Amino acid sequence: MDEASKAAAAVSERRQWERLMAMAAIGGFTDPDGHRGVNRACLTPLDREARRLLLSWAAPLGLAPSVDALGNLFLRLEGTDPALAPVLTGSHMDTQPNGGRFDGIWGVIAGLEAVQALREAGVTPRRPIEIVAWTNEEGGRFAPGCMGSMAYAGFRPRDAWDAVTDREGTRFADALREHLAEEADIPRRPLGVAEGPAPFAYVEAHIEQGPRLEAEGHDIGVVTGIQGSRWFVVEVAGKTDHAGTAPLSLRRDAVQDMLRAITALNALMHDPEDVLRFTVGSVEVSPNTSNSVAARARFTIDFRHPDNAVLQARGDAVRGVVQAALRACTAEVTERFHATPVAFQPLVPEAVERAAAAEGLRALRMPSGAFHDAQFLVPVCPTGMIFVPCRGGVSHHPSEYAEPAALAAGARVLARTLAALANG
Amino acid sequence: MDEASKAAAAVSERRQWERLMAMAAIGGFTDPDGHRGVNRACLTPLDREARRLLLSWAAPLGLAPSVDALGNLFLRLEGTDPALAPVLTGSHMDTQPNGGRFDGIWGVIAGLEAVQALREAGVTPRRPIEIVAWTNEEGGRFAPGCMGSMAYAGFRPRDAWDAVTDREGTRFADALREHLAEEADIPRRPLGVAEGPAPFAYVEAHIEQGPRLEAEGHDIGVVTGIQGSRWFVVEVAGKTDHAGTAPLSLRRDAVQDMLRAITALNALMHDPEDVLRFTVGSVEVSPNTSNSVAARARFTIDFRHPDNAVLQARGDAVRGVVQAALRACTAEVTERFHATPVAFQPLVPEAVERAAAAEGLRALRMPSGAFHDAQFLVPVCPTGMIFVPCRGGVSHHPSEYAEPAALAAGARVLARTLAALANG
Repeated sequence: MDEASKAAAAVSERRQWERLMAMAAIGGFTDPDGHRGVNRACLTPLDREARRLLLSWAAPLGLAPSVDALGNLFLRLEGTDPALAPVLTGSHMDTQPNGGRFDGIWGVIAGLEAVQALREAGVTPRRPIEIVAWTNEEGGRFAPGCMGSMAYAGFRPRDAWDAVTDREGTRFADALREHLAEEADIPRRPLGVAEGPAPFAYVEAHIEQGPRLEAEGHDIGVVTGIQGSRWFVVEVAGKTDHAGTAPLSLRRDAVQDMLRAITALNALMHDPEDVLRFTVGSVEVSPNTSNSVAARARFTIDFRHPDNAVLQARGDAVRGVVQAALRACTAEVTERFHATPVAFQPLVPEAVERAAAAEGLRALRMPSGAFHDAQFLVPVCPTGMIFVPCRGGVSHHPSEYAEPAALAAGARVLARTLAALANG
Repeated sequence: MDEASKAAAAVSERRQWERLMAMAAIGGFTDPDGHRGVNRACLTPLDREARRLLLSWAAPLGLAPSVDALGNLFLRLEGTDPALAPVLTGSHMDTQPNGGRFDGIWGVIAGLEAVQALREAGVTPRRPIEIVAWTNEEGGRFAPGCMGSMAYAGFRPRDAWDAVTDREGTRFADALREHLAEEADIPRRPLGVAEGPAPFAYVEAHIEQGPRLEAEGHDIGVVTGIQGSRWFVVEVAGKTDHAGTAPLSLRRDAVQDMLRAITALNALMHDPEDVLRFTVGSVEVSPNTSNSVAARARFTIDFRHPDNAVLQARGDAVRGVVQAALRACTAEVTERFHATPVAFQPLVPEAVERAAAAEGLRALRMPSGAFHDAQFLVPVCPTGMIFVPCRGGVSHHPSEYAEPAALAAGARVLARTLAALANG
């Protein structure tokens, strides 16, 4: 049996699950339907309690902790050649306010499980391996999310969000200062590529947050990149009228023209391959009374696609399609957000794919539909992600769930991937 | 020149307009667009101020005031045969909170103008003529509206709404008691057909509250009845999902199924003659965030038609059409309100039509699209309404407007109609 197989075999489904459940107790709650959720905002005492628990598991393994200026927490397994750039793996430990037990935290625990398995299998990699817990991926307390990875990658300066406040008026800079003071016993390290060298590669394990793997019977998602997104707001302006008197031919009914616009957009966004994501998730109508014709209707468009040509062409067509669909109203179309697709270099996805094959798992190459810290690492080093199925594709909710066996399979793939990258 | 023509000729466009503008100052305001609106809720000091102003105009004409137990205010022009049942005309003096200067109040002022014109023309009718200002037509302070006319007609007992409260917690019974105490100097009369004889006929002058007369170039609407209404609420239940990850084929998107349902209802409600009124005026979506597939969508249906067979058949089809239109969600359809069409007896509409013809005005037979006090008089006595055009069909808004000349034409038709009915 080769070293990587030994390491994969050393992954403990039970240990990983027990650690996840121990973490889920920190900020844990039970919702009215009996689902056990987690509310653990970044830079809070709960966040620090979770990080201390992580450190307590890392210490016996001889992993060296360090923290950077954004509060990103690292645990380093030394390599036989400490001068080489490390392989980085991890995710985040904060949750949405009504969050689940797996989103983010599993990527950190899986990193620990994989490294522990490598140690137990007697594997000492050539390159160092670092496990990272990024600060504030969710953006639930301080917006936007992914502050830790963005600052690490030099995407934004470290003080970019100092003035951002949470709902209680606490400034991000103050919350971070307090947090770093509480962790003053942990050695400080330079802040990512802004202050130090780049890692050799980055791999992030995460629940899929979508239904494909489960629905199509795959064990592992080999993430090839993160799809692009364009978000629009459409404001339809008509005229209110008395519902009992105004003939339909004379109306300028904003609800009816919104209907025409969405129907036309459905046609524009039609995709027989079902890769394209098109969502009208928010609708607001005014005056919104049952016996008045609507004067205004506002709706949002969330459009995503992994292929930039499609994202460009159909996104650019939104405005014209809306305008052409209107019968009696006018509409303003505003683009609120535009992120081009991110493609991972082949190094990490190929390593993940080989690892899944070696484990005899059914793997699917797929783009990530959701945003992740990984996207900010793409300009910094070869990057990749490992997805595992989650029940019904649900995340950001207490009913979020992944099977212990599925998470163990993911950790085995991660262990093999880390071994391959750290010795490659 | 006959008596009716003399009376019509005595109608003063200027006097009527000045009275309307004087009334509009009581509770008047100017909105941000410069429109002059009125906010005059029933049973308030402003309401009483308006009624006192009306009484001040009625006194020199020798009209005898009286008030019933619901606060309905009457002004009586005695007939040559006081024992005969009177002809009743009027409307209401309360407004919507963001109301206009014509809805309701014009029907009262037009009654006064017509009676004054009859007096000035030396016409003493055989039957008494009574001008009425119904209490709480709008329902803006105490719901529902039309309390005064409903109690008058014996449709509901006089204490039916005692426990109804306004936004400040004042009970209707207490507001009414205070109001009647303030008008203790006005003689009390029995409450309508519950406590006394029925009138000979009822005719109500009102702005159209719709765009037809203006759009089609008519001066007078000869109202033939009040169309029927059926109101529904449709609650579509699906499942929320991540907008970036969930394939469209696996979604149960409540917004998309709402779209299908409304599109199917548009087909069901299609009417080439444009008589049918179908409105989706209120839409609520949950969780209503741009990057989540909607789990729930709730929309209202306001469906009206003057023909009961159409109202019955298409209204009964709503539930099945909604259910058949759904792709992935479920829906609950609840009927909230069902009022069958009301047809006026020919007596008053024919009198109105003859009066319009005698004035050389372009008249259109039409149902009323909106509700009015008149509908509760239908079981009590022959009933009718006179509509005049209002700009853009707008009402219940400060921009509500009717031309002084159009209102004068309406008053002339009312004067002729009252003369015909009171001497018929």
